[in-house]
Amino acid sequence: MSDLTPTPRSRVRRLPDRGRYDFGTIASILDAGFLCYVGYVMDGQPYVTPTAYWRNGEHVYWHGSSASRMLRTLETGVDVCMTVAHVDGLVLARSAFHHSINYRSVMLFGRAHKLEDEGAKTKALEDFVEHMLPGRWAELRPVTSQELKATTVLYMPILEGSAKIRTGPPKDDEEDYTWPVWAGILPVQAVLGVPISDERLPETIHAPENLTHLSHLGLHHSR
Amino acid sequence: MSDLTPTPRSRVRRLPDRGRYDFGTIASILDAGFLCYVGYVMDGQPYVTPTAYWRNGEHVYWHGSSASRMLRTLETGVDVCMTVAHVDGLVLARSAFHHSINYRSVMLFGRAHKLEDEGAKTKALEDFVEHMLPGRWAELRPVTSQELKATTVLYMPILEGSAKIRTGPPKDDEEDYTWPVWAGILPVQAVLGVPISDERLPETIHAPENLTHLSHLGLHHSR
Repeated sequence: MSDLTPTPRSRVRRLPDRGRYDFGTIASILDAGFLCYVGYVMDGQPYVTPTAYWRNGEHVYWHGSSASRMLRTLETGVDVCMTVAHVDGLVLARSAFHHSINYRSVMLFGRAHKLEDEGAKTKALEDFVEHMLPGRWAELRPVTSQELKATTVLYMPILEGSAKIRTGPPKDDEEDYTWPVWAGILPVQAVLGVPISDERLPETIHAPENLTHLSHLGLHHSR
Repeated sequence: MSDLTPTPRSRVRRLPDRGRYDFGTIASILDAGFLCYVGYVMDGQPYVTPTAYWRNGEHVYWHGSSASRMLRTLETGVDVCMTVAHVDGLVLARSAFHHSINYRSVMLFGRAHKLEDEGAKTKALEDFVEHMLPGRWAELRPVTSQELKATTVLYMPILEGSAKIRTGPPKDDEEDYTWPVWAGILPVQAVLGVPISDERLPETIHAPENLTHLSHLGLHHSR
C-alpha cells in the first residue's frame, strides 16, 4: 500500500501539522467508520450525499439502488470528493476562540468505477456485510440475481487524499491558563444500545452476543 | 418559519416517502447535531469539508479561520450544499438486500453570506458557544477584536432543502420472515465520556455537572 503524495487539491492547508498522507493512517480512519459523505457536481451544483462505505485493500466502495441519482451520476466518471470524519471529543478552552473538536477525518479525491461483474458485485457486498457484521453473510437468505441487478456498487482507488487529525487538550493563550473556568476534553463516543428484536422474530431467536458492540466500526458497548 | 418547497435539486427522489420539507422537522434535525459537511465546487472539483455549525431562526451558521480556503471560497457566494446526518441505528434484515440504516438527515442548498459587522459576529459566536455549552460564554475570557478579525462567520438561509428520515424495523420480503436469523435494530447513540480536565487546570476547578451530557446535541450520558 503506497503512501499518498499531497496534490494541490489534497494538501492540508489550514493547520498543516494536522495533515497525514500515509496509507496506514488513512486506512485506519476509514476502517473505523461506515458513513461517508460523497460530494459531486451536477450542472455546476455541488451535492453531498451521506452513504455507507467500506474499504478493501487500496479501494473504497459504496453502493445503493441502481436508480439512485447519485450513483448514476458517479458511474459516469465525474470527480468525487469522499469525506469521513469521526468526532472524538469536544475541546473546551478558557477562551471561545480556542475551543475545538478532536477528530479524525479523511478526504479522498478521484473518480468512481462501477462493478459490472455479478460475481465481483456479490463478493463486494459480502465484504461489506462482513465488515459491518462479522459472520452475518452466511446466515442470511442468499442474495438473488434480481437484487444484484437492482444494486450498483462503485469503487474508487485510494490514490489522492489526506487525513486530518486533532488530539489532545485545549491550546490556550499562555496568559489565559489562570482564567477560572473548567477546561479540558469532553470525550465523544458512538455506542450501541440494547438490540431491539423485530416484532415478527420468533421468540427462540435471540440477538447474538457479538451484536452488542461493533467496536471495529467505532460502535462501543453502552456500558 | 415557512416550510420548504421541493425544487429540482432538493426534492427527495430515492424513496420519496422518506422526504420531509416542513421547517420544524428540518430545524429539529439541525439542532440535534453540531457537525455538518459543506460541499462546494472549486475549478469544477467538488470538495466536502466537515465543520461545526449551528442554527438561529431561519439561518444556519458556520465559522472558521479567515484564512480557510473553504470559507474564502464560500464567502464569494458560490453554490453550497450543506449536509447533516445522524445515525440512529443499524437495521438488520433477513436478507443482505434489506439491511439498512435508521437515520435523520438534512440537505440544504443555497449560497453563504459573510457576517461583516463585529457586533453581529460576536453575537453569532455567543449563540454558537451557548448552543453547544449552555452557560459557558459568560464564563470565558472575553473575545478580543483580534480574534474576531481572525474569524469568519458565514450564514445561509434555510430556504431550499429537504430532510430524509428512516425509522423502524427491517422491511423484509414476506417470504423471508421465517428465515432463521436474528433481525431487528441495533440502536446507535453518541455519548459523552467522563470529562478529562486539562493538566494545567487548578485542582479546585471541577467540571460542571451540566457537562456530563449535552443531549440537546445528541450527546447522551454514557450510563
